[in-house]
Amino acid sequence: MNVAYDDLIAFHGHSCPGLAIGYRMTMAAMDFLSSSHAAVEELVAIVENNACGVDALQYISGCTFGKGNFIFKDYGKQVYTLYNRNTRKGVRVVFNPQNIPEDIFKDRERFAHWLLTSDEGDVVSLKEVHIEEPEPARIMDTVVCESCGELVMSTRTRELDGKTVCIPCSEKHHVS
Amino acid sequence: MNVAYDDLIAFHGHSCPGLAIGYRMTMAAMDFLSSSHAAVEELVAIVENNACGVDALQYISGCTFGKGNFIFKDYGKQVYTLYNRNTRKGVRVVFNPQNIPEDIFKDRERFAHWLLTSDEGDVVSLKEVHIEEPEPARIMDTVVCESCGELVMSTRTRELDGKTVCIPCSEKHHVS
Repeated sequence: MNVAYDDLIAFHGHSCPGLAIGYRMTMAAMDFLSSSHAAVEELVAIVENNACGVDALQYISGCTFGKGNFIFKDYGKQVYTLYNRNTRKGVRVVFNPQNIPEDIFKDRERFAHWLLTSDEGDVVSLKEVHIEEPEPARIMDTVVCESCGELVMSTRTRELDGKTVCIPCSEKHHVS
Repeated sequence: MNVAYDDLIAFHGHSCPGLAIGYRMTMAAMDFLSSSHAAVEELVAIVENNACGVDALQYISGCTFGKGNFIFKDYGKQVYTLYNRNTRKGVRVVFNPQNIPEDIFKDRERFAHWLLTSDEGDVVSLKEVHIEEPEPARIMDTVVCESCGELVMSTRTRELDGKTVCIPCSEKHHVS
């Protein structure tokens, strides 16, 4: 697949080495899975950090925070795992920094250019993985918080003095 | 500001009532703050759910999961708070479902159309809020996990038998 890097910059807001890393990681993983942008949840991503590159992952793969096919594990690692529900094929992609020329680290523009133009094998490592299929997203009932009157998902309520309230209302009570 | 809903659909993957809700909530909040898409972190968003609408928030506001200006509170509420670092102005926007005609709930296409075309005051409520300015994102050092050899953010390591390891390696050890 082909995604214009300029369109990705418009989404993220700016270009940077981190975005370039995410671009190469995601494109490599998508090609490995022969996948295109997910319309619903046919692709799932597990991301192990919340750095700039994850915006490339969201934009290119369609595994987005709002769609239920995006799982965040706060491991601080430049690693994504993508899984295709149709083919049941998964891939783990890791950023490989060992080939970066030492003199370009501090020049963010040159560094981003190097990341975008180097051979895929110099930037990322890919490995097919077998993972347990993640649960699809579910739509939950909505109830009214008996304290503030706002709507809240039924699975995110707390009981307080015999009332069903939202988490912020339950925490305000505990603070006061 | 003006954002084409079709471009947003391309990012999210499909149109749905949830996306339309997020579109109206975000557009209303951005207009209230006289803000445009964030290039870096001049805007910050606190979102209280991870439903479809949050993709509209990311796409329109530039407060994205990968950029450090996106804070998730898992409250299950259709509420976003946007804060402009330049003006120090904040707004809390809430989805108002009470005006939705009862007969259109089950027709997702008609429902989305109603959400996109109704008066703003029929869809959302806005309130200026004063919040503590969120910390900007920080770049952390990277170290090598002494078990798997992969890179990991220094603040996401664990000590295990005298070695500094990443969280997945520390958990594998505990399981075996």
